[in-house]
Amino acid sequence: MTPAENAQLALLLEVAGTPKPGNVDRDRDLPDLRFEHFLAGAVGAGPGLRAAQNGAPVGEAFEQAVAGMSQQEGGNTQFGALLLLVPLVRAAGEGDLTPDGVARVVKNTTVEDAANFFRAFDHADVYVDDPPEDAEELDARRGSDAVPAVEERGVTLYDVMELGDDEDDVAREWTHEFERTFWAANRLAELAGSAPASAIGARVYLELLAREPDTFVAKQHGQKTAESVRVRAQQALEGGPEVVEAFADSLVEDGINPGTTADITAAGLFVALARGEVSV
Amino acid sequence: MTPAENAQLALLLEVAGTPKPGNVDRDRDLPDLRFEHFLAGAVGAGPGLRAAQNGAPVGEAFEQAVAGMSQQEGGNTQFGALLLLVPLVRAAGEGDLTPDGVARVVKNTTVEDAANFFRAFDHADVYVDDPPEDAEELDARRGSDAVPAVEERGVTLYDVMELGDDEDDVAREWTHEFERTFWAANRLAELAGSAPASAIGARVYLELLAREPDTFVAKQHGQKTAESVRVRAQQALEGGPEVVEAFADSLVEDGINPGTTADITAAGLFVALARGEVSV
Repeated sequence: MTPAENAQLALLLEVAGTPKPGNVDRDRDLPDLRFEHFLAGAVGAGPGLRAAQNGAPVGEAFEQAVAGMSQQEGGNTQFGALLLLVPLVRAAGEGDLTPDGVARVVKNTTVEDAANFFRAFDHADVYVDDPPEDAEELDARRGSDAVPAVEERGVTLYDVMELGDDEDDVAREWTHEFERTFWAANRLAELAGSAPASAIGARVYLELLAREPDTFVAKQHGQKTAESVRVRAQQALEGGPEVVEAFADSLVEDGINPGTTADITAAGLFVALARGEVSV
Repeated sequence: MTPAENAQLALLLEVAGTPKPGNVDRDRDLPDLRFEHFLAGAVGAGPGLRAAQNGAPVGEAFEQAVAGMSQQEGGNTQFGALLLLVPLVRAAGEGDLTPDGVARVVKNTTVEDAANFFRAFDHADVYVDDPPEDAEELDARRGSDAVPAVEERGVTLYDVMELGDDEDDVAREWTHEFERTFWAANRLAELAGSAPASAIGARVYLELLAREPDTFVAKQHGQKTAESVRVRAQQALEGGPEVVEAFADSLVEDGINPGTTADITAAGLFVALARGEVSV
């Protein structure tokens, strides 16, 4: 498969993996966000992912992927996952799917990439926290209205990610050589063959969740809740399938959605598929 | 979405719909054929479906779609569905997704389309019955080895389908203006909004199965078994969810796979999505 196809498959395997506590999976829909919205999101992201594979600028390919993803009625399904996948697919297209290779891709982003990143917010209703105090003009909730400020300040997309990397683990991947993504890919490679790809994806999701508090949970519910979810993920890993199921049910009940961890799982699945370490 | 994207989404919604007695769905894997093989098949079929949308000859686009679909380890996942989808996508690309429009596409197929159809069998291990007595050289199990006979006899792909349309309901769609496909699309349109798209897909699958004996079941297990499955599908429709579940379990136990009915369901989902009657 091509890098873009592996990225689509990674999105599909991520959402197919169950149980993935707090996230939509093949057995659990959220009230307004269903499994099939993610299927449509993965299909619609195709042209943007192919653009990235063929060397399009990261911001342009990302905006195209998000616009395509948004052709369904569930809202934001895979915005964060695509923000990881687009540079990874671009690096794979350049034949260098390594921490160094993807670091080079993101460090080479431009002001125009940043502008297109902000334009992508016009396509999808993405939950975003307040921007840092000195960067209010770069509030992502402003979407394309923030583009003049982006151009005036001359910030690249990498700079934008640096502004947010304390608060957001997708941004942190950008500025830390996709550390957790490659960790997940290596774990998936270790587990490969022990269960179907989507099942080992669900396992690695839980391991990621047990290692670091999910930053999307922290944004929505505070740092304490995020840390408590992390501890309960650890207990679920130790407690086995029934504890995992109970944990999954309780997160859905409380409306807690560790979305960043799901994004990193999708990115890890892509790397493992593209390196041929996991197959379907 | 483009016609090719709607076709990929239709393949995904078809396999996501549950319960779909006797077929793989999001809750039921067969021993060597799993849900995720169908996810990978739908992704891999993309380039062939896009070729059909852009006006490539039907046989060439079909062979490309099957080659792409086969980049997974489960074997034949969507061969029959693609044989329906490729001409439908081509008709949609020409702006005439109607019984007349798709009939024109299939009637215009050539000897070269037939040759590429036989070449497609080299990519996937497809279950095929004995050919008619006067057409042994056109045994699809010979794959590309049958191409010289195809060329010598000068049969088009439409002619090949006519040879098989008594025994195979995918072939029968080709020679009968995709009658059951459009019936399914109309039923899906009637049911739209009452449940998610994959769920109404599963419902229409059961209705199709209750109306006509599945020809893939007839090929593998005989006409009597196919008729008995049809009657039990009718009873399941009347009996409600628990009877449907029991029916689903018993078909898996007996190794009975109404694959042709699933193919027609996928084709019907495509038509309903492309006409905007069903959305996700």
